[in-house]
Amino acid sequence: MNIRLEKLYAAMGTARLDAVALNPGASLMYLTGLTFHLMERPVVGFFVPGRAPVLVLPALEMLKVQELPYPATTFPYDENPSSWSEAFRSAAQSVGLDGKRIGVEPRALRLLEFGYIQGAAPTADFPDASVALGSLRLCKDALEVQKMRRAVEIAEAALTATLLHIKTGISERELAAELTIQLLRHGSEPELPFAPIVSSGLNSANPHASPSERLLQPGDLLVVDWGATFEGYISDLTRTFALGPVDAELAKIHEIVQQANAAARAAAAPGVEAAAVDRAARAVIEQAGYGEYFTHRTGHGIGIEAHEEPYMRGDNRQVLQPGMTFTIEPGIYLPYRGGVRIEDNMLITENGAESLSNLSRKIARFDQ
Amino acid sequence: MNIRLEKLYAAMGTARLDAVALNPGASLMYLTGLTFHLMERPVVGFFVPGRAPVLVLPALEMLKVQELPYPATTFPYDENPSSWSEAFRSAAQSVGLDGKRIGVEPRALRLLEFGYIQGAAPTADFPDASVALGSLRLCKDALEVQKMRRAVEIAEAALTATLLHIKTGISERELAAELTIQLLRHGSEPELPFAPIVSSGLNSANPHASPSERLLQPGDLLVVDWGATFEGYISDLTRTFALGPVDAELAKIHEIVQQANAAARAAAAPGVEAAAVDRAARAVIEQAGYGEYFTHRTGHGIGIEAHEEPYMRGDNRQVLQPGMTFTIEPGIYLPYRGGVRIEDNMLITENGAESLSNLSRKIARFDQ
Repeated sequence: MNIRLEKLYAAMGTARLDAVALNPGASLMYLTGLTFHLMERPVVGFFVPGRAPVLVLPALEMLKVQELPYPATTFPYDENPSSWSEAFRSAAQSVGLDGKRIGVEPRALRLLEFGYIQGAAPTADFPDASVALGSLRLCKDALEVQKMRRAVEIAEAALTATLLHIKTGISERELAAELTIQLLRHGSEPELPFAPIVSSGLNSANPHASPSERLLQPGDLLVVDWGATFEGYISDLTRTFALGPVDAELAKIHEIVQQANAAARAAAAPGVEAAAVDRAARAVIEQAGYGEYFTHRTGHGIGIEAHEEPYMRGDNRQVLQPGMTFTIEPGIYLPYRGGVRIEDNMLITENGAESLSNLSRKIARFDQ
Repeated sequence: MNIRLEKLYAAMGTARLDAVALNPGASLMYLTGLTFHLMERPVVGFFVPGRAPVLVLPALEMLKVQELPYPATTFPYDENPSSWSEAFRSAAQSVGLDGKRIGVEPRALRLLEFGYIQGAAPTADFPDASVALGSLRLCKDALEVQKMRRAVEIAEAALTATLLHIKTGISERELAAELTIQLLRHGSEPELPFAPIVSSGLNSANPHASPSERLLQPGDLLVVDWGATFEGYISDLTRTFALGPVDAELAKIHEIVQQANAAARAAAAPGVEAAAVDRAARAVIEQAGYGEYFTHRTGHGIGIEAHEEPYMRGDNRQVLQPGMTFTIEPGIYLPYRGGVRIEDNMLITENGAESLSNLSRKIARFDQ
């Protein structure tokens, strides 16, 4: 049997789940290799130990099922939505789902799919299976780490090629488009983990800014947050640059964020709590007097998803283990002035932690 | 008051809804201009007639709210998930949601957001508001049509630039990457409506194939299905090419699909049912004896979303009206041999319909 299904069934046993119902997303891709756009046609996989996985899907997606790593039972439906409920009922009956404990992922499952599942198994319970499902993907195997290393290499090469374009007068949006093009040229899959963030000047004080028509100006800080996808696995990096000389305080917060990033990287190790990584970064920033301007957690897990467990948060007592991969990305954001973030991708090893990303973290200054 | 909010409140009155709860996606973007990645942090907007819209969101997204076209009440939460329920409860209380009829969109709303909403308004009803919300965006105004025209122009220019690269020996994946790059070079926003489909030879028989490492070969059909995003509005086109001379039956199905596409375009007009557009395309393909190989509906609405109402389906009695925009994309897929699809983007006008896309639909043959 497929090793990932074995892991799933073991986790389901621990969580006392009779079945798991998944819509398209990271968990379904991990277990089946299948990807679908989340559109108006519901796609659901049912996983029941001892039974072949069951897939309900549009008939026009049936050719994809040939890519499955193991046999599955399929319930294809046609284009008329009035037939979809029946496909779900037949699927649920084929593995006896009604009245059972069917684990679901609230972060992925929409009311659309849930409605069909509930209609097909009206007396079932639907406990949250996020922890059980998240645990499967928490520690990456060697092949997964290899893909993530490649996703980091692609991202680093793409940024290096894009640096040539950083200059006064180019817009954030143009720079973001160039970076996206370079990501694809260097081998990223077209579905990037997220659209690159390129934010300059006062926009850089918004951690989640969208690239705007603002033109880069002397004295700007420039935050670039970008990543690549390689064989379904992602990278997620950030560097902050300067356009010519910047205000002394902006240069100072860059220095502090570098130190916070280094402290968190040094704190990451097997046996350490995620909270300790957050605290290491936060302590540096707080001691420098900028605690209130570090408005987000220190990092998040990465893998198939751009945000997954483990989260580097002050309240997260999850213990880090070899194979876990996550970001370390402290930042300081001074409203209406500018912000700095420096983000690396970490792998917990047997003895400590390794940064998969090695681009210089110093503030590169572009003088034109 | 904002005209889009006025339309919303009128539609809510008709549907007897006290409130509407939206997570990030097309409807929230239409009403607020706000976009967020769907991640682990829930974002919800509550809309209640006579009250300022209410937004529950992470504190670190607060700067985005400055872009709102009208005042809103915000309930920001911090990084610790244990505080999120309280933010939702305060938001729901501020506009008295409990016990009310709160419309939701099953196709967009996840159990994640729904759980927080339900927790904050435990005795509320949650009717499906998809029809009321879909109706707001169904007929595009002049500015929306202008954006869609631009999205079509960008897509056409990108394909034209990519045609130079079509030749024996290039892989589907390389061609898809080149097309994506050209989309960005020609002005598409980085978030494409979908990753381009480039499928060749027997892969072209799969309507939703992902670009593979397969190298283009003489005798292949080549299906390219791609689109651009411009200011939040999308295009979605398909053309099918030939690598050198192709089998007579493959050439024949290309001819039939062209005729089916033309028949459906001719059938589209105000006052006509969506079903009639589907029937017009299907009749051509059925009369040619290939009905069983046209495995999907003839088209779908487009706008902010790549799939939205109205759907061109044989069972859809929805009447077309000026301002509606949708695809016409008949296809014939011969398993293990090859497929053809030809897709245009249509606008219903006062007197008939206009194709926004005008690239040649003939089978272009690439002889190297």
